Amino acid sequence: MSDAHTERQISAETQVALLGLLGYASLGAFALLAKDASEARTISTRMRLSRMAAAELAEIDSVEETIRALGGNPHQAFEEFSSFLTSYLHRAEPRDWWERLMRSYVRFNMLEDLLGELSQSLPADVRASADADPGVRGHADLIVDELGPVLANDEKLASRLALWGRRVVGEAISMARQLFEEWPEFVDLIPGDGDGQARRAALLGRLQNAHARRMDRLGLTA
Amino acid sequence: MSDAHTERQISAETQVALLGLLGYASLGAFALLAKDASEARTISTRMRLSRMAAAELAEIDSVEETIRALGGNPHQAFEEFSSFLTSYLHRAEPRDWWERLMRSYVRFNMLEDLLGELSQSLPADVRASADADPGVRGHADLIVDELGPVLANDEKLASRLALWGRRVVGEAISMARQLFEEWPEFVDLIPGDGDGQARRAALLGRLQNAHARRMDRLGLTA
Repeated sequence: MSDAHTERQISAETQVALLGLLGYASLGAFALLAKDASEARTISTRMRLSRMAAAELAEIDSVEETIRALGGNPHQAFEEFSSFLTSYLHRAEPRDWWERLMRSYVRFNMLEDLLGELSQSLPADVRASADADPGVRGHADLIVDELGPVLANDEKLASRLALWGRRVVGEAISMARQLFEEWPEFVDLIPGDGDGQARRAALLGRLQNAHARRMDRLGLTA
Repeated sequence: MSDAHTERQISAETQVALLGLLGYASLGAFALLAKDASEARTISTRMRLSRMAAAELAEIDSVEETIRALGGNPHQAFEEFSSFLTSYLHRAEPRDWWERLMRSYVRFNMLEDLLGELSQSLPADVRASADADPGVRGHADLIVDELGPVLANDEKLASRLALWGRRVVGEAISMARQLFEEWPEFVDLIPGDGDGQARRAALLGRLQNAHARRMDRLGLTA
């Protein structure tokens, strides 16, 4: 009846580190979505993306508070991931609005999937303070609304974006690998059975499957 | 005892137009502050600016609702000011972080001052739906916190930013003039005595005085 996973003890230091990653990811997602919003081709898309960006910040106060309660320094905890996430979020300059949308679709969702998996190991009260943003689902729907009809009518664009999606997802998987290399304590947070290496491999597989399902929503092959 | 100004009748069309300007200005300020946030040199400044950007969107829902209640189409009303405000907010690319801060300080505040004056003519319930953002004061304080100590210790930067401030404020005053040329109905909304031309001239004077006081807070001459 017991769940081996939730019984695992996570040190306060590792909790602070993960909250730092979550907090900086919110700041980064805010910037990414705000930039996308500023490039939107219609007011309604601009407003939807701007609101999603703003929603990314909604939990940052409670994340800060929880870090403090755990004895950490919030800004130091965020700063720890600044160059790692900035380089992830800024890599691969899109050539047009469609590549920009696709890039955010792949990148933002994979980051949220990864953070969602790691967050499961946090004690319930800590996890609640950093609950996965409800905006993710809305963002995926928006991308499908915007890109879906265009891709269905433009085969050339569809094959260009399929190629672009493979490049962006390749980088996203590299980011996930690099995260576990630079912060090996996060390997302990990966849910599932087996040793760290096995759970990490399984996690990367789940991330790739989720990506393939998202591409499928656009009628593309991952 | 009566106030000639508040008794002036403002047509629903003009109210919708002003709300459109206010709404698009919020979207524009959101983008401007979010971009500044993404360039911030410290996490704490980045967070303050990101939060201010998010706060800019807080009233946009009620602005949309009010436009609808007045029989207007919110997105059309916003769209009307898209190219006017985009060109205002994107003009004059800053060469560094300090020029970026100064540009936003001048541009954002002057736009808010202008909108604040025009909004006084709206019926109280309409005005309440678009109440001036409380973030403006916080933004000015942040700029003074960031720039003040640096300018006090770097005479060369201070004179470069004084020059830059004059360029940016010149454009801001041009924007205000252009607004009244392209949307002459807004002249009727300018508070004060005298004919349109006199009230417009007085308004431009007040905007310049407010700017001079802001420069003074930084130890600079406007």
